[in-house]
Amino acid sequence: MKKADVVVVGGSAAGLTAAITSRRHYTEKRVLLIRKEKQVLVPCGIPYIFGTLGSSEKNLVPDAVLEKNGIELLVNEVTDIERTDRFVTLLGGEKIGYEKLVLATGSIPMIPPITGTDIKNIFVIKKDVAHLQQMLEQLDRSSNLVIVGGGFIGAELADECCKNRQIKITIVEMLSHCLMLTFDEDLCAVAENIERERGIEVLAPEKVEAFLGNGTLTGVKLASGRELKADMVILGIGCLANTKLAEKAGLELGPTGGIQVNRYMHTSDESIFACGDCAEKLSFFDGKPSNLKLASTATREARIVGANLYGTRRMNCGVIGVFSTVLGETAFALAGLSEREAREKGYDVVVGEAESPNRHPGGMPEATDLKVRLVFERGTGIILGGQVMGAKCGGELINAVSVCIHERMTVDNIATFPMGTHPALTASPIAYQLTNAAEMAIKGMKSH
Amino acid sequence: MKKADVVVVGGSAAGLTAAITSRRHYTEKRVLLIRKEKQVLVPCGIPYIFGTLGSSEKNLVPDAVLEKNGIELLVNEVTDIERTDRFVTLLGGEKIGYEKLVLATGSIPMIPPITGTDIKNIFVIKKDVAHLQQMLEQLDRSSNLVIVGGGFIGAELADECCKNRQIKITIVEMLSHCLMLTFDEDLCAVAENIERERGIEVLAPEKVEAFLGNGTLTGVKLASGRELKADMVILGIGCLANTKLAEKAGLELGPTGGIQVNRYMHTSDESIFACGDCAEKLSFFDGKPSNLKLASTATREARIVGANLYGTRRMNCGVIGVFSTVLGETAFALAGLSEREAREKGYDVVVGEAESPNRHPGGMPEATDLKVRLVFERGTGIILGGQVMGAKCGGELINAVSVCIHERMTVDNIATFPMGTHPALTASPIAYQLTNAAEMAIKGMKSH
Repeated sequence: MKKADVVVVGGSAAGLTAAITSRRHYTEKRVLLIRKEKQVLVPCGIPYIFGTLGSSEKNLVPDAVLEKNGIELLVNEVTDIERTDRFVTLLGGEKIGYEKLVLATGSIPMIPPITGTDIKNIFVIKKDVAHLQQMLEQLDRSSNLVIVGGGFIGAELADECCKNRQIKITIVEMLSHCLMLTFDEDLCAVAENIERERGIEVLAPEKVEAFLGNGTLTGVKLASGRELKADMVILGIGCLANTKLAEKAGLELGPTGGIQVNRYMHTSDESIFACGDCAEKLSFFDGKPSNLKLASTATREARIVGANLYGTRRMNCGVIGVFSTVLGETAFALAGLSEREAREKGYDVVVGEAESPNRHPGGMPEATDLKVRLVFERGTGIILGGQVMGAKCGGELINAVSVCIHERMTVDNIATFPMGTHPALTASPIAYQLTNAAEMAIKGMKSH
Repeated sequence: MKKADVVVVGGSAAGLTAAITSRRHYTEKRVLLIRKEKQVLVPCGIPYIFGTLGSSEKNLVPDAVLEKNGIELLVNEVTDIERTDRFVTLLGGEKIGYEKLVLATGSIPMIPPITGTDIKNIFVIKKDVAHLQQMLEQLDRSSNLVIVGGGFIGAELADECCKNRQIKITIVEMLSHCLMLTFDEDLCAVAENIERERGIEVLAPEKVEAFLGNGTLTGVKLASGRELKADMVILGIGCLANTKLAEKAGLELGPTGGIQVNRYMHTSDESIFACGDCAEKLSFFDGKPSNLKLASTATREARIVGANLYGTRRMNCGVIGVFSTVLGETAFALAGLSEREAREKGYDVVVGEAESPNRHPGGMPEATDLKVRLVFERGTGIILGGQVMGAKCGGELINAVSVCIHERMTVDNIATFPMGTHPALTASPIAYQLTNAAEMAIKGMKSH
């Protein structure tokens, strides 16, 4: 029987990062990555296939990274895990032994319990080149696209599909605004307006009651009674942990349906680890189950798994959740809790905001407004979350916010952290958004 | 006698921020800012007057910020402080009483002890509109500019002065490369090459022996014996704390010549605070005197002063030092210690590096390489510094690094901090530079 020290099942963000990290920490170990897909897509890049990039081929993770890191690759499907004797079985029957097994089997798109989801030209987003190519071809033939779900995928897809195409696009979102699971309402409203200015119709709150058509899709019936013409539908309502293999092997599942893992990423079998979308998660803030599925979170968990395989070196402090996106030319990002979510979790919150151009003086080229909102707990002054809107450097600024949250910094520490500024790179030191948003929260603290 | 609760002397980054922060923390207090200058220049924007901005008028801090924050303004010079009776005397004799006094008197440019510095058309950089206007006019008349000092000011000035001008520019730098007080040598070499590609001659290591000319500047004589033709010289060799007023009032000075302050920014007089370039500083890393003078550091100290005026609420943990600049289209930034400086301070260091485009996949528009180098202490794994080179979003990424340093994060914590990524904003989560630079340092740690 063929054998590797470490076998990783799954080749997307989590699996790939777990394999690389294993090799970095345990250079003497043989690492084998087994994946179903011939080619691996950049998961977050998928919406951009439909506009900016133009094809799946331009959105691939090159396999060279495996070779460079000394990782063996097998393209095949793992059908079974034999835990007692520690081997996996492949489609076709071949068995491969392992010392440590890493499950990074990802997620599968949700299909809503609505009549007609089996009609042709209703698509979910699969991380599959042939499937996406089919979608792209259908998109180029379509005149009326309905996107169900106004979360990140829905919003980004709409923004991309309208690039260089004459197509009527409608987003149908159950909540009162797009992106409402992530941002505070005012930011969602700005995002939605950008979509509308680009000719996208946003219906929110609205629900789909049925997909219409007799074999061929003709329209979408809404809860309000309205009927939308449609020759293509994309479902972007979320995804579920892919736990098929784990369940078959008798591994425990957690409360949100993911593979149960502890703080060190062990499953209920000490030799088996799980990371990424397939693994159960806890919130950084209250240790409660979290449903977040993000590639960045997946790689973070994979870095913990890779280090912990032969000795426990890293602990998972839970999911903070760092989101970012661009709609039109405006970046939107969040780390931790929005004001609304913090209140829902029972925190007594204080909010501080600062807005300023990302260059100084404001007449410098490329100057774009950048707004920061920080959410603190009143009593302790500890930061709970931050939101950023505006210039694209916000995509990095949100990571500074995330470090602040991770380190449980207080409002005073953030107001006086040593930031660097430069006329051609950031706001002025007097108006630096991150420090000033903290200063603006001071008034509300009533701690002095 | 006129009186204010808080009197701030100096209207640049430190004074202005101290005044604003005072008002935010103590809304009931009357705050008066006294400054000599009619108009206040954005200090870091000064090099950009000579190219990108084109005039001092486009580089002013608007006084509206004073009004907006309820700060009174007096344009005059403070000539004396009467500490026992707590009042300051203005040029002309008027006296103004204070409860708390904040000194933010800034710095004065150094003039090297070289023959001929009094010749016409040899300039230092003063934060003075008329002076800068005179420089700009001379620059437009000049054919041969020699910049003495290849630090930030010198390098930025050279880069700006060559924009839209037919002028031969030479930088004369004492150390082996430009920017050597800040970055590791290889980054300095890249920066220098950018300057050279733009037609700037960089002489390093090289020294000026004398400025030549009989009333009118004709050239610069170098230690190597070479003579440079010159009709304009700019001296950018650093600056000294402006402590004239403090000394006259008998306040203690510190080892680097700044006004001595404690961790709470009190001077040797309990009612008097100092912040910014005029104040003595300590290193975050070893508590030793630090010579750093940066606008960002100045505003940070001012935020501590403003909060501490009537009750000690914030402590200064010392200077981390966060620098950033852009040469050509390439950003360079540092937080904390370079590898070289860390070794000089006696640390046993481990370095990790990661480079990747700032978009993913790499075919996304605006993709630009971004390199991160992190420096850790071997035994503890605590981060000591970080350097960033490449895309302009590095100007924000360096602030995430700074938070990591401020919080004394370890290599494992940085490798698994929860970062957010997005195709149109950052590197991929698999290749995210900050986490991966930490991972790349693991091997060198030998802690496992």
